Amino acid sequence: MYRTHNCGELRKEHIGQKVTLCGWVQLKRDKGGMIWIDLRDRYGITQLAAEQTTTAPELVKKIDKIGREFVIQVEGEVIERYSKNDKISTGDIEIKIENLKILSESEIPPFTIIDNTDGGDELRMKYRYLDIRRNPVKNALLLRHSIAQEIRKYLDAQNFVEIETPVLIKSTPEGARDFVVPSRMNPGEFYALPQSPQTFKQLLMIAGMDRYFQIVKCFRDEDLRADRQPEFTQIDCEMSFVEQNDILEIFEGMTKFLFKTVKGLEINYDFPRMPYSEAMEKYGNDKPDIRFGMTITDVSENVKGKNFVVFDSVDYIGGICLNGGAEYSRKQIDELTEFVKIPQVGAKGLVYCKYNSDGTFKSSVDKFYSESDWAIIAEKMNAQKGDMILILAGEKERTLHGLSELRLRLGNELGLRPRDSFAPLWIIEFPLLEFDAESGRYHAKHHPFTAPFDEDISLFETEPEKIRAKAYDLVINGVEIGGGSIRIFDKELQALMFKNLGFTKEDAEAQFGFLMNAFKYGAPPHGGIALGFDRLCSMFGGVDSIRDFIAFPKNNSGRDVMIDSPSKISQAQLNELGLILGETE
Amino acid sequence: MYRTHNCGELRKEHIGQKVTLCGWVQLKRDKGGMIWIDLRDRYGITQLAAEQTTTAPELVKKIDKIGREFVIQVEGEVIERYSKNDKISTGDIEIKIENLKILSESEIPPFTIIDNTDGGDELRMKYRYLDIRRNPVKNALLLRHSIAQEIRKYLDAQNFVEIETPVLIKSTPEGARDFVVPSRMNPGEFYALPQSPQTFKQLLMIAGMDRYFQIVKCFRDEDLRADRQPEFTQIDCEMSFVEQNDILEIFEGMTKFLFKTVKGLEINYDFPRMPYSEAMEKYGNDKPDIRFGMTITDVSENVKGKNFVVFDSVDYIGGICLNGGAEYSRKQIDELTEFVKIPQVGAKGLVYCKYNSDGTFKSSVDKFYSESDWAIIAEKMNAQKGDMILILAGEKERTLHGLSELRLRLGNELGLRPRDSFAPLWIIEFPLLEFDAESGRYHAKHHPFTAPFDEDISLFETEPEKIRAKAYDLVINGVEIGGGSIRIFDKELQALMFKNLGFTKEDAEAQFGFLMNAFKYGAPPHGGIALGFDRLCSMFGGVDSIRDFIAFPKNNSGRDVMIDSPSKISQAQLNELGLILGETE
Repeated sequence: MYRTHNCGELRKEHIGQKVTLCGWVQLKRDKGGMIWIDLRDRYGITQLAAEQTTTAPELVKKIDKIGREFVIQVEGEVIERYSKNDKISTGDIEIKIENLKILSESEIPPFTIIDNTDGGDELRMKYRYLDIRRNPVKNALLLRHSIAQEIRKYLDAQNFVEIETPVLIKSTPEGARDFVVPSRMNPGEFYALPQSPQTFKQLLMIAGMDRYFQIVKCFRDEDLRADRQPEFTQIDCEMSFVEQNDILEIFEGMTKFLFKTVKGLEINYDFPRMPYSEAMEKYGNDKPDIRFGMTITDVSENVKGKNFVVFDSVDYIGGICLNGGAEYSRKQIDELTEFVKIPQVGAKGLVYCKYNSDGTFKSSVDKFYSESDWAIIAEKMNAQKGDMILILAGEKERTLHGLSELRLRLGNELGLRPRDSFAPLWIIEFPLLEFDAESGRYHAKHHPFTAPFDEDISLFETEPEKIRAKAYDLVINGVEIGGGSIRIFDKELQALMFKNLGFTKEDAEAQFGFLMNAFKYGAPPHGGIALGFDRLCSMFGGVDSIRDFIAFPKNNSGRDVMIDSPSKISQAQLNELGLILGETE
Repeated sequence: MYRTHNCGELRKEHIGQKVTLCGWVQLKRDKGGMIWIDLRDRYGITQLAAEQTTTAPELVKKIDKIGREFVIQVEGEVIERYSKNDKISTGDIEIKIENLKILSESEIPPFTIIDNTDGGDELRMKYRYLDIRRNPVKNALLLRHSIAQEIRKYLDAQNFVEIETPVLIKSTPEGARDFVVPSRMNPGEFYALPQSPQTFKQLLMIAGMDRYFQIVKCFRDEDLRADRQPEFTQIDCEMSFVEQNDILEIFEGMTKFLFKTVKGLEINYDFPRMPYSEAMEKYGNDKPDIRFGMTITDVSENVKGKNFVVFDSVDYIGGICLNGGAEYSRKQIDELTEFVKIPQVGAKGLVYCKYNSDGTFKSSVDKFYSESDWAIIAEKMNAQKGDMILILAGEKERTLHGLSELRLRLGNELGLRPRDSFAPLWIIEFPLLEFDAESGRYHAKHHPFTAPFDEDISLFETEPEKIRAKAYDLVINGVEIGGGSIRIFDKELQALMFKNLGFTKEDAEAQFGFLMNAFKYGAPPHGGIALGFDRLCSMFGGVDSIRDFIAFPKNNSGRDVMIDSPSKISQAQLNELGLILGETE
């Protein structure tokens, strides 16, 4: 038995007890004949104390030797602390050191183990095992654990069965790139790692499992953007004999349950359900942050035909209203103009109009528009005196995107997006198909198994892009937390869908044959959802990056710098797998 | 809303209610103007009934159309059943069909969905989604779910944190073969899939996480034996500031908790702890089934030197005592003799001696041994009148193995190994090292991080094979459920261990450098265990094979015959990965 208590549990009521603690030395202080040590473990910090004059010399020598991050075992009596520390749970007491054993020494770590580390990102990743000792990372992992346990509690209570689907599956050319795994036993053949367990969960519904879930690793060999990982974790769910509303209710319930049990937040209202088209028109994107207004208004018909060639030549003109913006300086407006021109926003320029507090209007295009023109626009946009109207123009989708970026930037600047307030909503009625100009054909917006609205099926013949899907996304604070759909469970409808996606019968058979085959033996109506677990955790943690919620993340080149992976393998391994490095000409 | 209830929940108290059910048609019977349908879902079976004369003709027509495995939705009134069926939970009631909708038709399935299927193994695997509809497989998956939830409950309550370790890691040449994953972003380099999260869990201890667990997929590219899978699931755990006894207590507690919550079995005693050497001497293997006796006795000194050259020329002679065996016929004994000669048992022959009920002895080697010789052996083996002594001779290890196989076969034959009785125990004091004649060096019996007994460390110089390890296995009913060890946490001892395993400093650095490096910054004493989750589930399910406890298992060639994986990938994929198929000469 190494210890009687951990470093986070001793309180006033333990005073007088002899205890043994173990942990890491956070800090050692030497002051006026007293030595104090802050001893740290996962559970907290306990202060140890020794008086130089009354402590045995060998013990003092040992204490002298120890430094930061040494692992020690200490025996002593719990005594009341002279000056209490109400910042830590054990702040009422300290341990009078009677015996001390150094279990492990430590070199000076490459960065100090404190909340605001002095290591950089690279160093933190290389020494991740030291980084995890820091509270922000430790607490992120503990939070992740709690969320996972609560998810399981909720879903188990709702009759969901956790079923592990295989990791070594089959490569499919659709969608993002697969990671593949050469098979030694079947030379020249490969497994693929799953991008999601989609087909398996549908098979489990055909298998009659009724309600399935899994918190599961998925893999995508994509060029990594800032906050993507080649391996990530999904909360993957599927239900039988359900319509869209049943699924939304169950997972709205789960989200509320998590907010309550993990964050102590009670959400007493129904999540708004916003059609995709409304989200795009009003927020310029399909994952709106609805914690603040500043919604987009289409002012095309109000500004066209007034000889302003920029507006007359474009598809779409839209604006947002910035409360109090009339006070913005030239410099501030210039900054916004620069912002909208960066490639990620993509606008050509910014038109503004101040609605001054005296009721006058002052715009950057006064040559073309009168005050009464602006009055009409202001009324349409519900602008008030003191506000400023900001307008972008261009191709519609691109311009809505620009307005969305501008809106979010202003929201951030104005403090309208606080970390401790949460606004979940459902986006519904996604389009089923997207036209891809490059390939000249339609792609499934969600995936090829997503069911169309029954009343829209006839549009396959005429306006396929108008078909709405029984698909939905859960969005919180402008972040897509998850998405799903009701699946097609009818063979003929699935065939029609494949046809419209440009699959030949042979292609469909080769790629999805086993699923199509399964549909022949009694498929129940079913649907599901997948939530990004890493993202959900970072959302609950109030942090933008998912990295700290992953114990051992990879960097932007897909590399684990701690273990130095990926790495070369031996020629013998390559031979066994029947592989040669290099490219066929 | 597709249904008001599931097929397992209607009872007497629902009589008179209008309900809607969905499910699969298990069976349709037509008898004397009545039609009955057994409707099945995951939750149970509910009987539907329609009287041909009083039911609307269109409805009768629809009912006529449906066959086995059709998915239907039925509305009707819950009525009391004329002849009750106490074999199913809904046996008191039936539904008077008022409306019926065919949701999905079904072709005639390749095998009937009943408990004793008529498909073969190949067909079951190909149509696994139909196989899972069968109760034995469905219940196996439900049991697995329950066990997983209970494990998490227990470990969470014990302060274990569930942490996901990476799946894309680094290949290490030690041990079994890794599956590797070519990295597109780092051409010529590979990730490996983990055989276990061993190093990561140790790093988590160095990171101060104190108690870690994970129910996690692991991978091993081995030539598959009957009951091995290339991907399998481990309950992986690690704890800091513990000694062996702490770990045994926690996981003995977990095992008892699972027996109680999952099987309703209370185990009120401490699990026996048997040294490895005792298990080998008494049971001939390191995972003894202690539900029955028939233990092995070394009779070498009693039978040598009596001119029987077979015994005189060998290393070891051991016997077991078969109660009531004196009644065995010539034919039965011949069968046993054949059995011990098969390669998996490996003996040259079987010597027997009947201890007849009249007190006389009759052996197969009467030429060499007198009745008084046998009387001494019988006393040593605690044989009684009516028993039979069975003796094998040869090289010690091989002979003990043969005796173990013989013992287990007799145990099975005599019904001494019932599926519903459980005898867990710990095997402790494993040897740290094993000498490998082929490579002429020692291998780690457990793994290179396992700590030796403190008092045995000096034996590294003299008799390394006698060093005992702080390693332990959990064994139930002759099956190894899991194993683990206390780890080395001292840099010098680890270096000594590597040296004895024949690692150069460079090898050790290349393979385990990041772990060795981590040990420099304050490693706590730690240890852990990993339990085979698939095996644990099949043990609880009272089934030998793990296959039915895995939703989508692979066959003995590592192939998923349902999705036909592994499979070829495109030339474009190979090019992107910088790979050519073929072997370097």
